Amino acid sequence: MENNNQNLNFIYGKNPVIEALSTNPKRINKIFFQDKISFDNRLKKIMELAKSYGILTKFCNLNNFSEEKISHQGVIATISPVEYIDFDDFMQNLPKEGFKKVIILDEVSDPHNFGAIIRTGACAGFDAIIVSNHRSAPITSTVEKVSMGAVNHIKIVKVNSISAIVDYLKKEDWWIIATEVLAKDNYFDIDYTDMNFALIMGSEGKGVSKTLLNKADFRVRIPVNFESLNVSNATAVIVYEAVRQIEIKKSQK
Amino acid sequence: MENNNQNLNFIYGKNPVIEALSTNPKRINKIFFQDKISFDNRLKKIMELAKSYGILTKFCNLNNFSEEKISHQGVIATISPVEYIDFDDFMQNLPKEGFKKVIILDEVSDPHNFGAIIRTGACAGFDAIIVSNHRSAPITSTVEKVSMGAVNHIKIVKVNSISAIVDYLKKEDWWIIATEVLAKDNYFDIDYTDMNFALIMGSEGKGVSKTLLNKADFRVRIPVNFESLNVSNATAVIVYEAVRQIEIKKSQK
Repeated sequence: MENNNQNLNFIYGKNPVIEALSTNPKRINKIFFQDKISFDNRLKKIMELAKSYGILTKFCNLNNFSEEKISHQGVIATISPVEYIDFDDFMQNLPKEGFKKVIILDEVSDPHNFGAIIRTGACAGFDAIIVSNHRSAPITSTVEKVSMGAVNHIKIVKVNSISAIVDYLKKEDWWIIATEVLAKDNYFDIDYTDMNFALIMGSEGKGVSKTLLNKADFRVRIPVNFESLNVSNATAVIVYEAVRQIEIKKSQK
Repeated sequence: MENNNQNLNFIYGKNPVIEALSTNPKRINKIFFQDKISFDNRLKKIMELAKSYGILTKFCNLNNFSEEKISHQGVIATISPVEYIDFDDFMQNLPKEGFKKVIILDEVSDPHNFGAIIRTGACAGFDAIIVSNHRSAPITSTVEKVSMGAVNHIKIVKVNSISAIVDYLKKEDWWIIATEVLAKDNYFDIDYTDMNFALIMGSEGKGVSKTLLNKADFRVRIPVNFESLNVSNATAVIVYEAVRQIEIKKSQK
């Protein structure tokens, strides 16, 4: 297997491979099956889809392959990496209707957290996850696996400077929300339903940088009895408070 | 190092070891430092605390030790495992005042999710996490590390049969909430402020078992645009909706 090819990622397991075949077959390069495996319905489906898209398949021993000891269930696909969206393209192709919502990650480097946040953003119907070129987790196969395929369902925008993007968004009448442990307002004290907003989440060690906190229109905290939440859980709590408020407003109309 | 001792867990890294020394020094067996490491303030503090509690310390090469490739930052502690609380003890020692809240995990087996849920429960001030003897993730050093020491700040109760415990709680006038993808009510449609409640979260693959769903007083869903949330994020979303409602009620008094 060409695991010396730095430009390819790997997808492990039946459901993740089916998900990739269904949503983004063009990204798939080859599909490898475990030697002598007996084909169940999902493996048969993978083989059929591969044939229909003209994707090369091969049988080999997958067990010594994965360094990360990820369970492969008899099938691994090699895929070209998820493409980051350019910020200008993202802004130009925003839907005309409705308020926009994005999550900005300020140096979140753990792949489990990054993957879970992508999944939460897609579940909550946010428009994008924005990350910086520097010191962010790359979209590896672990990130893709943890996201359960959500990397194909939400735009992931990479920018050179988060600070410059925040300045730009503010000029365009977006509102900036940042989390801060000692903020006065709770995250549920603000109204998420009547604005375009960007929620900035910081790294677990350092939180949101001072520069970005100073630019924020709202600083909010999550009340805690012990230390702090994991960053992906903290993101889910705030993102879903926005979803809750929006759903309730919809139901009142 | 005695990594053949199946009854010991390991804590990796400066802050986790300091946390364990501060909250539960009796659990610590020995502390190992990386050979020839230069002591910064946190390592000095660890050495001082170890001496004051009479804990054995030793220098050795830690780099080949951890199979899990967890960053150790020059220090590893061996500790006796977190003690599960007996359900009867838990019920007998509940605080007299206020409503009680617990999370019940129905076969959550991923250690990252288990650790993150323990952390969320501690942050939110819940009274316990209840898990089943069977098919649950054990409290390994990964769980403890992901929980950021929260395993020492919330009771973790192990029971033989979740189904029997749910029956018992219902008789004691607790209310049972379970998540179900196709439930009619959203998780924010119910009032968490005027009852003792147990929130049942299911495994990611299978969800909450049918038996437990049938016993639930409330079945709730989290609205999603794509598949479903990661189980630790889903737990955080519902747990913090309860926290939000309780905080708002408090502020109105």
